[in-house]
Amino acid sequence: MTHIVILGCGFGGLAAARKLASADVRITLIDRSNHHLFQPLLYQVATAGLSAPAIAAPIRHMFAHQRNLTTLMATVTGIDANDKKVMLEDGCAVSYDYLIVAVGATHSYFGHDEWARVAPGLKTLDDAFEIRRRILMAFEHAELENDDARRAAWLSFAIIGGGATGVEMAGTLAEIARHTLSGEFRRIDSRKARVALIEGNDRVLSSFTPDLSEKAKRQLEKLGVEVRTGCRVTAIDNDALTFGTASGEERMVAKTVIWAAGVAASPIGKSLGVPLDRAGRVIVQPDLSVPRHPDVFVIGDMAAATSDGKPVPGVSPAAKQMGKTTACNILRRMKGVPTHIFRYRDPGSLATIGRKAAVAMLGKIKFSGFAAWLFWLCVHIYFLIGFRNRLLVMMDWAWAYFTFERSARIVTGNDKTEVDFKVGQA
Amino acid sequence: MTHIVILGCGFGGLAAARKLASADVRITLIDRSNHHLFQPLLYQVATAGLSAPAIAAPIRHMFAHQRNLTTLMATVTGIDANDKKVMLEDGCAVSYDYLIVAVGATHSYFGHDEWARVAPGLKTLDDAFEIRRRILMAFEHAELENDDARRAAWLSFAIIGGGATGVEMAGTLAEIARHTLSGEFRRIDSRKARVALIEGNDRVLSSFTPDLSEKAKRQLEKLGVEVRTGCRVTAIDNDALTFGTASGEERMVAKTVIWAAGVAASPIGKSLGVPLDRAGRVIVQPDLSVPRHPDVFVIGDMAAATSDGKPVPGVSPAAKQMGKTTACNILRRMKGVPTHIFRYRDPGSLATIGRKAAVAMLGKIKFSGFAAWLFWLCVHIYFLIGFRNRLLVMMDWAWAYFTFERSARIVTGNDKTEVDFKVGQA
Repeated sequence: MTHIVILGCGFGGLAAARKLASADVRITLIDRSNHHLFQPLLYQVATAGLSAPAIAAPIRHMFAHQRNLTTLMATVTGIDANDKKVMLEDGCAVSYDYLIVAVGATHSYFGHDEWARVAPGLKTLDDAFEIRRRILMAFEHAELENDDARRAAWLSFAIIGGGATGVEMAGTLAEIARHTLSGEFRRIDSRKARVALIEGNDRVLSSFTPDLSEKAKRQLEKLGVEVRTGCRVTAIDNDALTFGTASGEERMVAKTVIWAAGVAASPIGKSLGVPLDRAGRVIVQPDLSVPRHPDVFVIGDMAAATSDGKPVPGVSPAAKQMGKTTACNILRRMKGVPTHIFRYRDPGSLATIGRKAAVAMLGKIKFSGFAAWLFWLCVHIYFLIGFRNRLLVMMDWAWAYFTFERSARIVTGNDKTEVDFKVGQA
Repeated sequence: MTHIVILGCGFGGLAAARKLASADVRITLIDRSNHHLFQPLLYQVATAGLSAPAIAAPIRHMFAHQRNLTTLMATVTGIDANDKKVMLEDGCAVSYDYLIVAVGATHSYFGHDEWARVAPGLKTLDDAFEIRRRILMAFEHAELENDDARRAAWLSFAIIGGGATGVEMAGTLAEIARHTLSGEFRRIDSRKARVALIEGNDRVLSSFTPDLSEKAKRQLEKLGVEVRTGCRVTAIDNDALTFGTASGEERMVAKTVIWAAGVAASPIGKSLGVPLDRAGRVIVQPDLSVPRHPDVFVIGDMAAATSDGKPVPGVSPAAKQMGKTTACNILRRMKGVPTHIFRYRDPGSLATIGRKAAVAMLGKIKFSGFAAWLFWLCVHIYFLIGFRNRLLVMMDWAWAYFTFERSARIVTGNDKTEVDFKVGQA
């Protein structure tokens, strides 16, 4: 029986696997984690709004009833496209007839990998827990600090990158400082925390129209976020970050820095031995297969695909559509009929900024503020996998909306921040 | 103003702090974590039934409106009862007029601390995450394993200690294997997993009456748990545990071992320089103060207290009652009136075994099975802190009851188990 191997159970891999549910094939789905992650809401876990299980579903459970699919929890180290096999971490290999590569992207520090330690990015649940711990512990450190300058440093947060994730993180962080934690400390005023959003371009949310970027900026500022555009970061250390502006170099003190700036495709693409773009993405054919390997398809954030001459954005609707097209194309190739060309249908763009604040762009319709926020809420709840999660998330949000409380403010694990503060005589 | 320092925000510390809410004193509550943990349900986090935020509440949030109280997130290293101060990890000290020590207990390996690595215990959220990871990963390892004996070893689980925690863990683990995971794997049958409960005494739940112990045993066996009493563990390694029985020594293969056998009081008690019992607990006066230091009180699992000549058990109702009595006694001492003697009012004992199975002992009333389980459910939901958590937990449980699904089956972090398995050709 034809063996289809799918690498990665993100939005792309999941869509492909589901589309093949009734096909007469054998599918092996390989993922290094045991769960599918609803990544658009990962920032909510990082900011203590949602618990991990609310946005993650066990892959095995999702496919329990799809009998043609086997789940393997394993880490892939490379692909041998000539021998048609996938190499796993322990040295074993899995052979395939058709391969779908959908392992996504990771954060890129533009050659400054040393920044990863001081400015963590947000891609996995572990990343989210680490960022949550740093944010909550910064306020604890500030409360214990006797020195004014050091206290201010603990109460300063910088988010690098003004895309959707950066905007969401900045807005939510400001809300936490202004509302959630307000009144809970005795020596500090959490409302005085400084939250800065640093963007290299001349506007935030550059994938939106300039007027929506401007609206997003104003909504952020209303929440108390300091929006700095045209600032390119040149250095980050334990205490501050440095960036170049039009008027020279500037140093901003901040003990907590979050990286939301760059992504790079998974390095697994390299092992295919085909042309990659600057971000390490595989340049795919119009039908999403790989040059010289018609049995290998690359989809989602790993693929540099074009649709009607325009690059396909690295967003979840694109990954889902690619997954479905690829599943169909494999079945067509099995039947010996020509494959379909991938065409991206843009469902619109949405970014949330905070409570009652968001921007939306649906074709020619553009709106922002409360209406956009409500729309964002409905879309995200709708897309969350499984009835139960949707209900839980809705309850969490309803609660948070009326009380400003955040349900997941739990710190566990060792405090791995580079700590050099002193606890005063209490 | 009189300064009362409370160490630990478990059930005892929390009750004392609340009782002092309207007193004209200054309170400092020191805890090394940022949350109060509803420990009776911690096994539900360890077995993927509940998410961490459902059973943990941020201490600062709980006391946001108690203006006479300051929360300090810090680790205490010792107490200087002569100088009336508490030492913190960073070398600083906090002075007190009255001190309430309520830092609880940790697991004890009876001199075999090397077992901690292979047989983790369950006291903190981190412990729960580690156990959850080991349980879920054991099934993943089994699915990847080609060798029959090694596969069986991954599918063998041993819980050491037949107290309430051990019984709860064993029953829930059997349910996970028989129901939750059933049908999700392709190469193994999770229902064939072996779950053994190892107890040194001649019966499980020895704090209950012998007939209830017998009923608990039968309910466990009905769920598929192998109950082994009169077995004293002598060795544990990566692959198996060894225990002595009436008929000699026995070796039981099990890749996953969970420790629910012994507790020892926190070592902080030692620094008081007063007599301790065998388990390291401070032997307190009838009013819960410490010999020679009438301004220091020790409560909860750290205290070896007696009530009407009988030892007070290490359970949450006892800790709460001690907290309240101590708060009153400090206020009485401030007024110069004699302190009250602590009297434990036993609200009864409850232990759950699994779905529809539990045992209950309320004074002379004893019952088991479905009625006891319903009663257990109501009691635990009632005592969970905060309306919201209660509602969430109820929803989680209602869902789990009807679907056998468990909401928190998310594995994160590195796999730290000593792994020596091989992944087969898939």
